[in-house]
Amino acid sequence: MNQVWITGVGTSSFGRLADQTPGDLVATAVTEAMDDAGVTPADLDAIYLGSVFGAPGIANRVTDHAGLHGVPIIRLEAACASGTSAFHEAVQNVGHGRFRTVLAVGVEHMSSTFPRGPIVPEPTDREQRTGLALPALYALQAHRYLHDTGTPAEAIAGVAVKNKRHGSMNPRAHLAKGDVTLDEVLAAPMVADPLTRLQCCPLTDGAAAAVVSAERSETRPTCVEVLASDMVSGIPWGAASTDRYWGVGPVRRAAAAAYALAGVTATDVHVAEVHDAFTIGEVLAVEALGLAGPGTAARRIADGGFAIGSADGPTINPSGGLLSRGHPLGATGLAQLAEITWQLRGEAADRQVDDARVGLVETMGGGAAGVDGNAAVVTILRRTP
Amino acid sequence: MNQVWITGVGTSSFGRLADQTPGDLVATAVTEAMDDAGVTPADLDAIYLGSVFGAPGIANRVTDHAGLHGVPIIRLEAACASGTSAFHEAVQNVGHGRFRTVLAVGVEHMSSTFPRGPIVPEPTDREQRTGLALPALYALQAHRYLHDTGTPAEAIAGVAVKNKRHGSMNPRAHLAKGDVTLDEVLAAPMVADPLTRLQCCPLTDGAAAAVVSAERSETRPTCVEVLASDMVSGIPWGAASTDRYWGVGPVRRAAAAAYALAGVTATDVHVAEVHDAFTIGEVLAVEALGLAGPGTAARRIADGGFAIGSADGPTINPSGGLLSRGHPLGATGLAQLAEITWQLRGEAADRQVDDARVGLVETMGGGAAGVDGNAAVVTILRRTP
Repeated sequence: MNQVWITGVGTSSFGRLADQTPGDLVATAVTEAMDDAGVTPADLDAIYLGSVFGAPGIANRVTDHAGLHGVPIIRLEAACASGTSAFHEAVQNVGHGRFRTVLAVGVEHMSSTFPRGPIVPEPTDREQRTGLALPALYALQAHRYLHDTGTPAEAIAGVAVKNKRHGSMNPRAHLAKGDVTLDEVLAAPMVADPLTRLQCCPLTDGAAAAVVSAERSETRPTCVEVLASDMVSGIPWGAASTDRYWGVGPVRRAAAAAYALAGVTATDVHVAEVHDAFTIGEVLAVEALGLAGPGTAARRIADGGFAIGSADGPTINPSGGLLSRGHPLGATGLAQLAEITWQLRGEAADRQVDDARVGLVETMGGGAAGVDGNAAVVTILRRTP
Repeated sequence: MNQVWITGVGTSSFGRLADQTPGDLVATAVTEAMDDAGVTPADLDAIYLGSVFGAPGIANRVTDHAGLHGVPIIRLEAACASGTSAFHEAVQNVGHGRFRTVLAVGVEHMSSTFPRGPIVPEPTDREQRTGLALPALYALQAHRYLHDTGTPAEAIAGVAVKNKRHGSMNPRAHLAKGDVTLDEVLAAPMVADPLTRLQCCPLTDGAAAAVVSAERSETRPTCVEVLASDMVSGIPWGAASTDRYWGVGPVRRAAAAAYALAGVTATDVHVAEVHDAFTIGEVLAVEALGLAGPGTAARRIADGGFAIGSADGPTINPSGGLLSRGHPLGATGLAQLAEITWQLRGEAADRQVDDARVGLVETMGGGAAGVDGNAAVVTILRRTP
């Protein structure tokens, strides 16, 4: 596969944005990304757009609203990994020579999709009538982790403290109103034991975009290369999958493939955005990615590790993650990619990770209760020079 | 681009299939297609799945139900062109060397998505509050056509007579209960003047699939090559588009690109499946594809042209088309591709078109009222030898 570059990124603000349509959010993100890359609509060979709950035809409506007319659009859905899947398809199609310059964009307007409350119900289908909503699935992961490792529940809650602190340095984050203490996290209303409300991501509106190109920028001194991107689809949980933790197997398999393709190992990673839809999600992702040993991540995070400025471990979720930046499903993966791009270019302002040269993005699309995750995408990026 | 082949096709039955889940329908279509191609799940590099209204995660659920575990899945939505868009992405990714063998599949379960009635409402969004549902958009096309060409409305209704006759020879068709007369079509309840109910496609459940491969079958004497596939996304109607007919410009542009790429012209086409969601849709598609001169298609169809066995024109919609086989949105494009594949291989039984060597599929994804169609896909297939 040919070399592939991220030449521009952009995002909207994230939050409950009732006064903005999906098209408004996309216009903001796309304009920033295209300006960043120095490209115009005429330069684009295609658009890959990720959205989970966007109505049929959303891709045309929002890209037309953003002034992108006549560019072929492919709209993808892969549950919470929709944005990263759009990026993955963009990378593969540039890398294999079909396209030169592609826009990957993601958008979700959760506050209009789910106006009544914060817990997303599972879609109903004959195959999945177990009744397990996502907070319950993650709560089962957490109880298994506490049981297997002897970790206290307070350690898992430490993820929220770290990511809220990171998010307080991100002016675009949804929940960027300042630090929270461990006591506040533990005292928040219980959603699905042991996960309190501050351990669950909010329902967020937003959009994010990246320009994927076969050529690096000629003018920008520091460029971001896509060393590897791998996507794995889930298999039935409990039958084909022997993993003890729901949704972790696909992440592990995607990471192994991506590290091999990139020619790097977990110890080379300086900064990562991972799928902390719930606190336990970050713990298990960090371990599945090999960034911490099995059973160690929660305690290390609780002890201050994996934070901006910490000497222990790579920095995880400097943007604030899904817990603080927010989780606009289709946009999430591209928001993660934007953060890592800014980090690698040294443009992350107050939340800059020192000398970040290799970055990683992991997104996990959950959903079907009978399936070990719908999709996991792992992408590895490197700064040049 | 490398040569690309369709090595297997399959479909479910089409109709109101309340006793079957989307997964059941996909299992039927996929099993037939993979048996036809002689491939097993282990041979598949990827699955491209088209569905419009399928809930998030549908791609994993239905493919798991069909026994396809661990194959990367990309789920696409492009309104009514979702199935053909999935096929298009499969073809491009095989042609550019990313994959060797890919399954394209489409599915829709309209009777559970729209349990209350046959007219699909437009999705609501700030950008499109004109209130034009699809029957009304097609009715405007029809009135413009009658006005511009002096064609009597009865001629347009002739499309329904032809396609119902074709459908009566298709045991899998939704409305395959025998011929209808022109008087019956005209006397049916009016949906959107001049389009009576028999000039509107039904709400149909179904699935269809195709195996797309870099290699032709070694055992099958007659193979089907994909000469060209082109996808065009819509532009705002009335501003950037100067077409007098909504949704026709993208079809014309996709056809021009596909003919050029395939190295054939409209006169080389022996059989085509086109997007007759409403009778006027077939009339305008046939003209946009260059298969009939401007303003002539309706009269020629009413006079018996473009029918199986007719000496006038290539055969259009031998399957019965959307009007008779039915319109399970995400499955429609792949059902069209299955029909043309059977026709080119001489396997279309009672509805076989004599000596069909070059076939064409056209799908138009409508939807957004402010946009000149969401997507149009035109694919040209050729029999070898």
